[in-house]
Amino acid sequence: MPQDLLPVSPLAPDAFPDMPAIDGVGLAACAAGVRYAGQTDLLLAKLAKGTAVAGVFTKSKTAAAPIDWCRNILPLGTAGALVVNSGNANAFTGARGNDAVRAIAEAAAAACGCPPDHVYIAQTGVIGEPIDAAKITAVLPGLAASLGSDWEGAAAAIMTTDTYPKGCVRTANVGGVQVTINGIAKGSGMIAPDMATMLSFLFTDAAIPADILEIMLTRAVDKSFNAITVDSDTSTSDTVLAFATGAADHPAVAGLGEAGLQEFRGALDAVCLDLAQQVVRDGEGASKFIAISVTGAEDDIAARRIGLSVANSPLVKTAIAGGDANWGRVVMAVGKSGEAADRDKLAISIGGVAIAEAGTVVAGYDEAPVAEHMRGLEIEIAIDVGIGDGTATVWTCDLTHGYIDINADYRT
Amino acid sequence: MPQDLLPVSPLAPDAFPDMPAIDGVGLAACAAGVRYAGQTDLLLAKLAKGTAVAGVFTKSKTAAAPIDWCRNILPLGTAGALVVNSGNANAFTGARGNDAVRAIAEAAAAACGCPPDHVYIAQTGVIGEPIDAAKITAVLPGLAASLGSDWEGAAAAIMTTDTYPKGCVRTANVGGVQVTINGIAKGSGMIAPDMATMLSFLFTDAAIPADILEIMLTRAVDKSFNAITVDSDTSTSDTVLAFATGAADHPAVAGLGEAGLQEFRGALDAVCLDLAQQVVRDGEGASKFIAISVTGAEDDIAARRIGLSVANSPLVKTAIAGGDANWGRVVMAVGKSGEAADRDKLAISIGGVAIAEAGTVVAGYDEAPVAEHMRGLEIEIAIDVGIGDGTATVWTCDLTHGYIDINADYRT
Repeated sequence: MPQDLLPVSPLAPDAFPDMPAIDGVGLAACAAGVRYAGQTDLLLAKLAKGTAVAGVFTKSKTAAAPIDWCRNILPLGTAGALVVNSGNANAFTGARGNDAVRAIAEAAAAACGCPPDHVYIAQTGVIGEPIDAAKITAVLPGLAASLGSDWEGAAAAIMTTDTYPKGCVRTANVGGVQVTINGIAKGSGMIAPDMATMLSFLFTDAAIPADILEIMLTRAVDKSFNAITVDSDTSTSDTVLAFATGAADHPAVAGLGEAGLQEFRGALDAVCLDLAQQVVRDGEGASKFIAISVTGAEDDIAARRIGLSVANSPLVKTAIAGGDANWGRVVMAVGKSGEAADRDKLAISIGGVAIAEAGTVVAGYDEAPVAEHMRGLEIEIAIDVGIGDGTATVWTCDLTHGYIDINADYRT
Repeated sequence: MPQDLLPVSPLAPDAFPDMPAIDGVGLAACAAGVRYAGQTDLLLAKLAKGTAVAGVFTKSKTAAAPIDWCRNILPLGTAGALVVNSGNANAFTGARGNDAVRAIAEAAAAACGCPPDHVYIAQTGVIGEPIDAAKITAVLPGLAASLGSDWEGAAAAIMTTDTYPKGCVRTANVGGVQVTINGIAKGSGMIAPDMATMLSFLFTDAAIPADILEIMLTRAVDKSFNAITVDSDTSTSDTVLAFATGAADHPAVAGLGEAGLQEFRGALDAVCLDLAQQVVRDGEGASKFIAISVTGAEDDIAARRIGLSVANSPLVKTAIAGGDANWGRVVMAVGKSGEAADRDKLAISIGGVAIAEAGTVVAGYDEAPVAEHMRGLEIEIAIDVGIGDGTATVWTCDLTHGYIDINADYRT
């Protein structure tokens, strides 16, 4: 559905951040009419020659055509342009889908003066419907001639059922020179308006070789975009791309372990986490933001699986929607994760209040302060599995009538 | 919530089946006041001396106390009584929970004249609250003195948020002698009234050794109760038990492969499948019954995982609730299953109408007959993965506002 039909999430940040221009990045957006007339649905980012690129993509076995395209060109490590459209995911569109991607890449390459295999493409929206690439290729030259640095406009151009544009900026000192990382993201369920996606694009003026950027991005995504869930559904089109233009004049970065990179890595992690949490805060129908921290699991992977089992449980999510401190459902979700657990060592607290320890409710447990916590917008659940050193934190939102409204009713 | 607050599911069978007495099984139920006053919440089944028993239990790592009890005594292979209560699951109740189970077993043993370790116990309802076993032990002698064969009453006694009692009967010829299998079940989400469970109890007058019964039951459950899902949540208390009293005078059964057992196995499979489907038809908030058949997967296990990935997808379930033939969401759910798939070999049909083949929508696809199918109460989705011989069928229901109502609102 057109995004203006949805009210802004009650969990949204107060305002879009003040994001500076990034040297080597030019942005332009327009309404190309991919699906809806008059709605901004196309973003072009032109990148300075020599920009390094890293990417992380959906693990779906039925990934969309642009995912195949990006995966194929990523080993080249160099980007000249990014094209993002909403309205049509170009997924499950067969050979025609591949042709459309190639046409868009060639048009963007011509407009930006780079080879087609330096053009990154991300598409979200309805799947299974052939996309009319001409609507996009026709307007790319005009976009390339009107580049600027309107980050809020760029973040808005890639929205689908998002109720607010998502941006984040952090700076870091690399070898005595300040660099900037700007990030934008979209995503609010795994669907919008038909089935969409989580997309995020990060831009920095730092000069980071593609192979090093890839490692840093993968690790940052692991602790952020891969640690959030709205409805457990995985898009065919999930994409995170990082572009480093190299315009900043800092000493060359040769290896991942360099001291000069530590602050940059922290900033990259922070941008990814902030954007990932913004996606959760815009979860379809979300009325509460939920952080689930798991400690004492067999290892970190087990901890994250347990956290996601709780975060994806419809019973946990509906209980929280109802303001119900139903810790029994948390026990259930830990148990169903399949990870090693011992019922008689499990401890659970909500809002910092210990509820259950050693396999049973704590003596004299008073639900009142927990119930008060549950009435808030931010819910904290802590689970100690009690058997190892594994830890993880995951984030999700509650499951409300709003989710059903958005997903069951829009086409009827 | 008290069960009389919920309207009967629109997918319910027309009537409870006419179930005969089973020689060697005596039933009695009453309102023991486990959680709500005046609601039938306790079932006692007394079983003839020498009754063989088989069982399949939840895989949860945080299983309830009665699950531990039953698992421990199952190797004995003999049952004298079954006690089932609703209102309290006796889960996550620590040592007190184990004491309560033992007290119930001892009281039932005394009332029925069998050893305590021949007493099977199943409990559903709120978790984390200590159960007052005295409410149950006090009434067991009276129940043991008033045994009958009211199967509908027995099925009603074990209900929680179920909107109708679930029963099924089949007969089979074993070595020239007709035997009967009666089954009852409960379950409508994994929650009721706080968090509950899927329970099923099967009773036959056939004389089947426990080890053979166990194998047959495990296989039957695999294709029925383990092939359904309402909300992906796994109870701490799921239990299926089969009791064979041996009262029927048929030739002894020595091995699983005996020709005389084939009809019995078919009947056992049929009872399990019928009851499992009845559980789905009573799924919390269900308005449509959905069968998902998967062919062409890498193997049968992969086929079932793909089927359950589709069946558990909130996006698929909400689309069906909205009557939307949104096959793109099916593609997404196949892709996220993690099982081997090739986007360009995938085929999907709904209601017998081919929609997508070889990675794209079929030429001239007309949505009208599919939309007509989607308006019905029974939805059929067929997925051919196109890469192997694995097949599976799973069943689920849609995800509606009713699910949110039941699970988010009842304690607020």
